[in-house]
Amino acid sequence: MTGADHLPGTEPFAARGPLEADPAVREVVSWNSDGLVAAVAVDATRGDVLMLAWVSPEALDATLRTGRAWYWSRSRRSLWCKGETSGDRQWVREVRLDCDGDALLYLVDQEGRGACHTGDRSCFSRRLAVGPEPRV
Amino acid sequence: MTGADHLPGTEPFAARGPLEADPAVREVVSWNSDGLVAAVAVDATRGDVLMLAWVSPEALDATLRTGRAWYWSRSRRSLWCKGETSGDRQWVREVRLDCDGDALLYLVDQEGRGACHTGDRSCFSRRLAVGPEPRV
Repeated sequence: MTGADHLPGTEPFAARGPLEADPAVREVVSWNSDGLVAAVAVDATRGDVLMLAWVSPEALDATLRTGRAWYWSRSRRSLWCKGETSGDRQWVREVRLDCDGDALLYLVDQEGRGACHTGDRSCFSRRLAVGPEPRV
Repeated sequence: MTGADHLPGTEPFAARGPLEADPAVREVVSWNSDGLVAAVAVDATRGDVLMLAWVSPEALDATLRTGRAWYWSRSRRSLWCKGETSGDRQWVREVRLDCDGDALLYLVDQEGRGACHTGDRSCFSRRLAVGPEPRV
């Protein structure tokens, strides 16, 4: 989508391009026995955690090439471009790797309603346990 | 550690107790084929992502019982209480589950230098790829 045919409100998301990557990007990731790595998507501006999903080498390549967040769907066994059908697209500003190389962080601009298929902004909306307020 | 024997500066962390949990907590988690679930530790106040690690049912129980962040070390094949040796402890305020039940969020107060064994605050300090600034 270029400037000429954008929808109202999508302009900040429309002008992204490919990411500039470390040439060794595929080699520095410790892919697991299924050839995948966990990726945490975080809102680049607000910093909140949106979702956790899995990335294959091909998904990482597609992310770097397009600037969109690509993942590997373990249930469908296929590449998946976030928001392609829902419109809740993620535009990647940065990809980071953790210290032991087996987890990625996608810093994204989240378009649409949010990251969750339920319509919630974050997939982590279910509270399982809560502690007491700290006494200072 | 109780009020009587705390170290200076540790007071906000010293008064935590067990977490109040959903009674079905073990059943609602989709444990993977290794009996584990991925957990993202996030600073409860600042909201930044600190680390990603793995949690077994026993680690989750210990977390709920103590209010400290427990994980499962896949390399050492043992339960692991974050910061027990380094002092960089995590006190859990909340545990959340994602929409498909296979990822946890630990909302923590991070004590000490940070979450990473390197001394960094976050384990995600290595930048692999960066995109162009969005043109608005």
